[in-house]
Amino acid sequence: MVSTDRIESTLLEALEHASGNGCPPKLAEAMHYAVFPGGARVRPKLCLAVAMACAEDSPELVNAAAASIELLHCASLVHDDLPCFDDAEIRRGKPSVHRAFGEDLAVLTGDALIVQAFQVLGRAGRVAPRRLGELLCLIGDSVGGPTGIVAGQAWESEPKVTLVDYERSKTGSLFAAATAAGAIACGADPNAWGKVGDRIGEAYQVADDILDFAGDPEKIGKPVGQDAVHGRPSFAIEHGLKEAKRRLEHLVSSAIRAIPPCPGRAAMRQQVAMEARRFTPDEPLRAAEAAVA
Amino acid sequence: MVSTDRIESTLLEALEHASGNGCPPKLAEAMHYAVFPGGARVRPKLCLAVAMACAEDSPELVNAAAASIELLHCASLVHDDLPCFDDAEIRRGKPSVHRAFGEDLAVLTGDALIVQAFQVLGRAGRVAPRRLGELLCLIGDSVGGPTGIVAGQAWESEPKVTLVDYERSKTGSLFAAATAAGAIACGADPNAWGKVGDRIGEAYQVADDILDFAGDPEKIGKPVGQDAVHGRPSFAIEHGLKEAKRRLEHLVSSAIRAIPPCPGRAAMRQQVAMEARRFTPDEPLRAAEAAVA
Repeated sequence: MVSTDRIESTLLEALEHASGNGCPPKLAEAMHYAVFPGGARVRPKLCLAVAMACAEDSPELVNAAAASIELLHCASLVHDDLPCFDDAEIRRGKPSVHRAFGEDLAVLTGDALIVQAFQVLGRAGRVAPRRLGELLCLIGDSVGGPTGIVAGQAWESEPKVTLVDYERSKTGSLFAAATAAGAIACGADPNAWGKVGDRIGEAYQVADDILDFAGDPEKIGKPVGQDAVHGRPSFAIEHGLKEAKRRLEHLVSSAIRAIPPCPGRAAMRQQVAMEARRFTPDEPLRAAEAAVA
Repeated sequence: MVSTDRIESTLLEALEHASGNGCPPKLAEAMHYAVFPGGARVRPKLCLAVAMACAEDSPELVNAAAASIELLHCASLVHDDLPCFDDAEIRRGKPSVHRAFGEDLAVLTGDALIVQAFQVLGRAGRVAPRRLGELLCLIGDSVGGPTGIVAGQAWESEPKVTLVDYERSKTGSLFAAATAAGAIACGADPNAWGKVGDRIGEAYQVADDILDFAGDPEKIGKPVGQDAVHGRPSFAIEHGLKEAKRRLEHLVSSAIRAIPPCPGRAAMRQQVAMEARRFTPDEPLRAAEAAVA
């Protein structure tokens, strides 16, 4: 698939730059380990899909935006897996970075991937400076304070948090950035597209809550039941599986309806529906249906 | 002092943005704690001094570059103090961030400050987009892989490292970025100015090695003898105090000689000499002189 090639080759190029001549070998290895092989690459695919739907005119900048967002996602996984958070043993079916390389290198790998996300933008932005400032603000805000994914993770250290604040920061913000960045990188309206990403992100989080609540750890490559263990807000825990399924369907169709007029609108609608099916956890939902039947 | 006001007010504005509406309260507090009150603010002062020497024409971008570099420095202190590295109890005369807020918030505070450094650049870059790409590449490379300060810290996890590789990455790179960023932000030559910062950074590192080897922990606000404890390369340990003093003097005068032609060259020379005196550790050097007399 073309967009997969674009994503993987841009990520590989970014990693080659960041771990090139003079890099401490273990850091170089750990950075590569944290990014390859990837997960579903949902966020960068979404970014590229928006750009293609908008008849992109600056593919280098689009690739950089997509890679930047995926690097930030990978960095957040490395840090969230640390012993002071989830202490996850397994990620993407192999030992988490701190289990494979030690806690020190896991902290630095996350740091280096965050910085790399901005190095990638900077290199592409020198070629297409016009849209760089807006892209940098958007991606920075989706990760940092006050409501980016770092803030989302920090809500876990507060005594009280609402489901909406938590999930919007922890997951929604980077999805909204993925679609809005695709739009900015080709001169389209980031606000309209940001809403699409926001809803897809919320759908993805509900799906993730369902998987954690009732999924099969073998199939998803990570342990389940973590939301309950860590006392994290979860739609599935709060409202039950049946309501979670209804919410998920509503969010996906609302995302599809929010797609603004653009040259590739029909294809984009199809792609969102297809990707949504991919991350919809069939098995626990079927179990839920059977339970309420 | 004018440049101090510029630095503190830009940092404060950055922090207000990053910890504004919707930010988890503990993260907001920890970010503020990590940045205020500051240390000597040597790097942002250097950045501003270069811009003033070059008759700056874009003060907003200069302020953003200086604040960005200081935020990255503060982030590196928070992460380097973590239990998996130095496990430092004290920083800038008060409990380190992980001692005051817990390890989880210390990881996130460092992350949020790294991202904030780029958010600051993005916001200013929207006003002055012309120089943003170059500034972003320069600052990104000075922090990330393969030879930025994250790489410098990662050398501590390698079985073998040379003094030059370690100190150039761990300290030199952000100093070189401080002077080069000041130059880029006002359209001057970053290469010529980068050399000045590189030498000042090396001088600063030698001074730091001397302080760690023979300084008074009460006066410098952090424990000493850490280089020996952690087996880190140190000029003072490797070559002795007398040779370290000679090296320090050589580096400072070499930095002053490297200052390129510019409207404020004479004042810049004076300022570098003055700042160098400020971070030169008189007491251990006097002790060294007494010992060899």
